[in-house]
Amino acid sequence: MNLPDQMLVEMLSLGQRARAAAKAVRDASADQRTTALHAMARRLRDAAPAILTANAKDVDAARTSGKAESFIDRLALDAKRLEAIASGVEIVAAQPDPVGAVTADWTQPNGLRFQRVRTPIGVIGMIFESRPNVAADASALALRAGNTIILRGGADSAESVAAIVAAIRAALREANLPEDAVQVVETTDRAAVGLMLAGLGGAIDVIIPRGGKSLVARVQEEARVPVFAHLEGICHTYVHAGADAQKALDIALNGKMRRVSVCGATETLLIDQAVAAKLLPDIATALSNAGCELRGDDAARRLTPMNVADEDDWRTEYLAPIISIRVVAGIDEAIQHIAAYGSQHTESIVTEDQDAADKFLREVDSAIVLHNASTQFADGGEFGFGGEIGIATGRMHARGPVGAEQLTTFKYMVRGSGQTRP
Amino acid sequence: MNLPDQMLVEMLSLGQRARAAAKAVRDASADQRTTALHAMARRLRDAAPAILTANAKDVDAARTSGKAESFIDRLALDAKRLEAIASGVEIVAAQPDPVGAVTADWTQPNGLRFQRVRTPIGVIGMIFESRPNVAADASALALRAGNTIILRGGADSAESVAAIVAAIRAALREANLPEDAVQVVETTDRAAVGLMLAGLGGAIDVIIPRGGKSLVARVQEEARVPVFAHLEGICHTYVHAGADAQKALDIALNGKMRRVSVCGATETLLIDQAVAAKLLPDIATALSNAGCELRGDDAARRLTPMNVADEDDWRTEYLAPIISIRVVAGIDEAIQHIAAYGSQHTESIVTEDQDAADKFLREVDSAIVLHNASTQFADGGEFGFGGEIGIATGRMHARGPVGAEQLTTFKYMVRGSGQTRP
Repeated sequence: MNLPDQMLVEMLSLGQRARAAAKAVRDASADQRTTALHAMARRLRDAAPAILTANAKDVDAARTSGKAESFIDRLALDAKRLEAIASGVEIVAAQPDPVGAVTADWTQPNGLRFQRVRTPIGVIGMIFESRPNVAADASALALRAGNTIILRGGADSAESVAAIVAAIRAALREANLPEDAVQVVETTDRAAVGLMLAGLGGAIDVIIPRGGKSLVARVQEEARVPVFAHLEGICHTYVHAGADAQKALDIALNGKMRRVSVCGATETLLIDQAVAAKLLPDIATALSNAGCELRGDDAARRLTPMNVADEDDWRTEYLAPIISIRVVAGIDEAIQHIAAYGSQHTESIVTEDQDAADKFLREVDSAIVLHNASTQFADGGEFGFGGEIGIATGRMHARGPVGAEQLTTFKYMVRGSGQTRP
Repeated sequence: MNLPDQMLVEMLSLGQRARAAAKAVRDASADQRTTALHAMARRLRDAAPAILTANAKDVDAARTSGKAESFIDRLALDAKRLEAIASGVEIVAAQPDPVGAVTADWTQPNGLRFQRVRTPIGVIGMIFESRPNVAADASALALRAGNTIILRGGADSAESVAAIVAAIRAALREANLPEDAVQVVETTDRAAVGLMLAGLGGAIDVIIPRGGKSLVARVQEEARVPVFAHLEGICHTYVHAGADAQKALDIALNGKMRRVSVCGATETLLIDQAVAAKLLPDIATALSNAGCELRGDDAARRLTPMNVADEDDWRTEYLAPIISIRVVAGIDEAIQHIAAYGSQHTESIVTEDQDAADKFLREVDSAIVLHNASTQFADGGEFGFGGEIGIATGRMHARGPVGAEQLTTFKYMVRGSGQTRP
């Protein structure tokens, strides 16, 4: 048997173990899953020395191979970051268990009673890159929703992920749940990702990718099972004619500059012609002073000095301290711009005009639409989901931050008294 | 320009028109969609002569080409069937409009108010075979949920579908909605299906196939967009030790024999050892008298004469008057059998024991789990959905009968008062 065959056997066996564990995790009580999550948090804290030692190896290797500092920063753990990971697991433990929740309940004229009840999706395949915290966050959310998970991290974080998962699996055993509820793909062969995207012989119900554009492109191309995809976040802040000046400035500045590398960062500022002369210069100065490059259309550039925005700018997710600025005639043009150039991720309107706000929230077809709040709230933690396993930009099943509830599906329970169908 | 290029241009243009129409249908009021649905029902009735003439052409062509009677039966319309189609559209018109329904509403400590609101999926691609009624049923449900639809029927029903869709588009115009909310792919080139499965240049949000195994296989293989797939319905009726004898007989007989060709038909009967000797002979006789072939395991064959069931029988969706019968030790073995051989479609337990019923409904991981009712209730109409666009056997987004509610997605509306993220 050559190496690829060996890998195939190992991968399929991994999938079978995940599927076998899924029934026990699904049928466990909510209390049992909660107990396991508390044990996970405790054991992650107890294993801090081992996890930090493993992480130091990953960081050394990354430095030796000349990785960029931004990469090292995503990879590196310290006591504080590890505590944040453990606390995150406790927040998930405190979330209501979604399994078994009744989301609809009705009775038909023939006496049949129908209930739609949340059930776990089953087996989640998580493909991520260098951030080791994803292993703990994703495992906790998967377990909260009664799922099992197969983790495939980047080779660069392999030692860290192995140490984190060892702590998690010990916690599962302690709670009398199968340790195979959380498994790691150990081979670094890229073919393993292909097997996961093909569903691992029917063992994987959904793939959740978290990573850069090349990973996303590969998933789009190869996946034969459902995917919670995260594409771009070309997010807009729209300053309406009825905006409060201070709120407009605060929300534009925070939306763009709080963190420029997150998917919920504002990339384009739209501002109504009626208030542009009054509000744009101050907003532009504040952004500029914070280190942001401004690129505007002709109307914006007549009001305040900035670079030229071309057609490509409206379609660009900068993930950098750059913002494109366009003056619009009014709310309809703003909504049209967002429909034409946006990525249906997150958009915010700043206005004191309730009708305009309602129209914007209703007509803009994005996963998250905000009124008088920063686009940077596009985050599962800020939604109260106790973290997120990712943000979905697709329209099916999950949309926006994916928390435990979005990791469930449902079934119909139907209770009768002997009914047959005429 | 050669023919395939011409087809590509036409198909992409079809997709763009569907996408363009989607905003108007989405932003229309519920009343406007209801008005359009009532107009559809009326115009389908008014167009009865034209539709029946068109259908007669399809039926003649099918007869000439030697199609089987069962095929002709699926294809043929008469006044009664057409009235049933129009009535079905009226039932959908009477359904609550799901768009805008708030399914969750909470406020975070920072004062941000979150609402999860149902929104249309967008553009539905419907691929079906010979039943012309699907064109009307699917268009009505798509419109109820604020979607537009692209229909691709089989070449055999082309005249019928064209006549039905002409009536539907006239109704849309009458209600001031874009007629391109419902469109038909006119080319019979199979490559058109491939273009739809690839998403028609980003214009299609979800594919719903309704047809035989070769269509399903092609969709599974080629689809690059989400699919509400319908695979097999290997449905089980389980007679528990605590079953009422009369209910067991009625439910087994109805579950199998009411209509043997539907996906909710029972294919395997499981019966507890404790009651098999008492109940199985009568059930077997009733099935046999109704024209059903029996195939049993050794234990069943010791109790009543029948053919031998082999391993393949447990995995077979007969869609024919044949039933496989297995005697099980108890509820755990029944649940295990269903997990091992079932297709997670529809299963029923017959028992007067409430604990056993609850365990079965909780632990069996199928889209529909019933207690003391026939598996033939697996139908959107019976669920009160006013029809169904299909039954989904996948686990993502929609599961079981797909009505208007399952043709929606959601977005988060977030209302603030100037919040920025720390």
